[in-house]
Amino acid sequence: MAQERCTPALELEHLQRLLLSCREAKKSAYCPYSRFPVGAALLTRDGRIFSGELRREEKLTGKKELLGKGSESLPALEWDKPFTQHMQQEVVLLEIPLGSPLFSGCNIENACYPLGVCAERTAIQKAISEGYKEFRAIAIASDLQDDFISPCGACRQVMREFGTNWAVYMTKPDGTYVVRTVQELLPSSFGPEDLQKIQ
Amino acid sequence: MAQERCTPALELEHLQRLLLSCREAKKSAYCPYSRFPVGAALLTRDGRIFSGELRREEKLTGKKELLGKGSESLPALEWDKPFTQHMQQEVVLLEIPLGSPLFSGCNIENACYPLGVCAERTAIQKAISEGYKEFRAIAIASDLQDDFISPCGACRQVMREFGTNWAVYMTKPDGTYVVRTVQELLPSSFGPEDLQKIQ
Amino acid sequence: MAQERCTPALELEHLQRLLLSCREAKKSAYCPYSRFPVGAALLTRDGRIFSGELRREEKLTGKKELLGKGSESLPALEWDKPFTQHMQQEVVLLEIPLGSPLFSGCNIENACYPLGVCAERTAIQKAISEGYKEFRAIAIASDLQDDFISPCGACRQVMREFGTNWAVYMTKPDGTYVVRTVQELLPSSFGPEDLQKIQ
Amino acid sequence: MAQERCTPALELEHLQRLLLSCREAKKSAYCPYSRFPVGAALLTRDGRIFSGELRREEKLTGKKELLGKGSESLPALEWDKPFTQHMQQEVVLLEIPLGSPLFSGCNIENACYPLGVCAERTAIQKAISEGYKEFRAIAIASDLQDDFISPCGACRQVMREFGTNWAVYMTKPDGTYVVRTVQELLPSSFGPEDLQKIQ
Ligand SMILES: [Zn+2]
Ligand SMILES: [Zn+2]
Ligand SMILES: [Zn+2]
Ligand SMILES: [Zn+2]
Repeated sequence: MAQERCTPALELEHLQRLLLSCREAKKSAYCPYSRFPVGAALLTRDGRIFSGELRREEKLTGKKELLGKGSESLPALEWDKPFTQHMQQEVVLLEIPLGSPLFSGCNIENACYPLGVCAERTAIQKAISEGYKEFRAIAIASDLQDDFISPCGACRQVMREFGTNWAVYMTKPDGTYVVRTVQELLPSSFGPEDLQKIQ
Repeated sequence: MAQERCTPALELEHLQRLLLSCREAKKSAYCPYSRFPVGAALLTRDGRIFSGELRREEKLTGKKELLGKGSESLPALEWDKPFTQHMQQEVVLLEIPLGSPLFSGCNIENACYPLGVCAERTAIQKAISEGYKEFRAIAIASDLQDDFISPCGACRQVMREFGTNWAVYMTKPDGTYVVRTVQELLPSSFGPEDLQKIQ
Repeated sequence: MAQERCTPALELEHLQRLLLSCREAKKSAYCPYSRFPVGAALLTRDGRIFSGELRREEKLTGKKELLGKGSESLPALEWDKPFTQHMQQEVVLLEIPLGSPLFSGCNIENACYPLGVCAERTAIQKAISEGYKEFRAIAIASDLQDDFISPCGACRQVMREFGTNWAVYMTKPDGTYVVRTVQELLPSSFGPEDLQKIQ
Repeated sequence: MAQERCTPALELEHLQRLLLSCREAKKSAYCPYSRFPVGAALLTRDGRIFSGELRREEKLTGKKELLGKGSESLPALEWDKPFTQHMQQEVVLLEIPLGSPLFSGCNIENACYPLGVCAERTAIQKAISEGYKEFRAIAIASDLQDDFISPCGACRQVMREFGTNWAVYMTKPDGTYVVRTVQELLPSSFGPEDLQKIQ
């Protein structure tokens, strides 16, 4: 579907932080068995700290009612909008970097291989354990020179637990990347809603 | 892509066995915590037992060189071929059902939730441990009335370890199903090849 | 505690099957990443088909009457009894090998290391998925020449889900072994009972 | 063995932080499926930041050569010493709390149960990803009123990857606890050394 393929836009500032952070995180990898270090950086969708620039956002989208005084939630990026609209929205979102903490992770292996964990899950678990459950984007870095490192299926499922409509940046060491939504990487997924249906 | 969406055809006989078996396998589920039983049935691509009908296959596809005397491998289903060609091939494959053992699995939970395992992985692990490493199709059954039960990301990754081009049948209790390839369910996947690149 | 340390006795015939089977199972290991093949063999405590003939066991051989209609449960081995009593009990149990199916497993790795599974869990999952939930013993084999291969913590927890009082035989390639109960290998364990307490 | 049973002593100040932190961490648990929140707090054995009080340590134990200028490593607690000697050592170690960062974690579940993670592993993964690989103690808290919450086998194995001789505090909500070493909780364990033997 065309909409699913729409790559979610991220503010340049955030994107740069993400791309740098996932590369930096790779240095902490504990991977004596695979010798395949991976790093990840996760951008949360916080909104607890909110700037006065909200008024400009209101003008653009008329979401005043959603974002009233004391609101704890940021307007979700509307990924399905045409790219040009995203660009407008970004101008506003740039004002509120403080409200989006970033968590980094690395792969951590175990002599009993199945007990290791990937960089992506480490980053997500750190965020959750610090109280952040909504995510905007994750970036992943490895030493693979010619391939964009992509998340394993288990990590995709853990991402999906916290929403299908956020961005996964798969990078190369040269700084290039491809981006997909969680939905694109895990189509027809099983999730929290399904479990509830049976109980 | 159109080719990826092409649902792989399976002989009716095999398909029926698969659909019945995954429903039957559900009965063995050990799921005291979720109370969400799941069953899976896995059709292997064996070829060790091969019928004399091979000559007809040779005529159809000219794969004599691939399937010489004593060959241990079956011709792979060519999923990307037009459906009508698949139909021709099926006529032949129907002759060799003995060469395709079927393995079933169920979900097996643990009081420590992360130590449970899904039905799909149970089936795959059974097959591997019995010497079968090539798969043609897996079918999955649950009690969800209105949804086709789909594999979690971890199971998709375990499927993918053994090939991206085989079929996943996601069923409903009423016997209907949707089918996707592993590739479709886990696009842009990380796999065995990637690990080798770095070593 | 002295009782816990008491190594559970197994009939010689069963023990030999176990030790051979775990070594044989190792051959199916899919371990291209660790190159560390492991095999496991699991002896179930079946008893679904059980006769009153237990009294004399049809004079040591003829198993036809052993498996007549009737009782559904085998007498559990009483591990805490003095060893001499075990010996007496064994004389009887030796007559009923058919009632105790054996399942084998191997380690099955994944390019995404955390998605692999150990030999012990493979064997247990196979048994459960075939309807066997009570176990008497598991044996483990690896290529380590000078060490008795021991189960990882995850496998111990999966064993413990199905009882703490059964035997784990950790072997060396030379055929020697040490044996511990699940309880000994996972003391002070968390299990199914604990989860119920809170609900 | 008597030595293994010797519970490792921790400075009162650190112990209090640990016990409070694991209880606090429990509040972040994401456990919509089990409704069984667990928290963990992990005390690292850092030593990178080291105080001038080292001289007193030198006087007490004569370890000057081990702890020379620029040393990166703290003297390991000698668990097998009589308790009174620990007390002497503690007086000194109290001087260097800054060198021992504490990491907290909670359980984070998934609709696909096997993809969840425990509180203990979350805490350990956080520490590793921040560059801390040596641990002194971990404390665990749950809502079980009458039981000391104990780590699952998988968590014990992940703890063991980073040493067998550190302390696990299993607590009750009333603040009481029992303490065991990783070695005691995972006897006869498989670890990094074993994997190397075969390669
Ligand atoms: Zn992963
Ligand atoms: Zn699954
Ligand atoms: Zn294991
Ligand atoms: Zn655990």
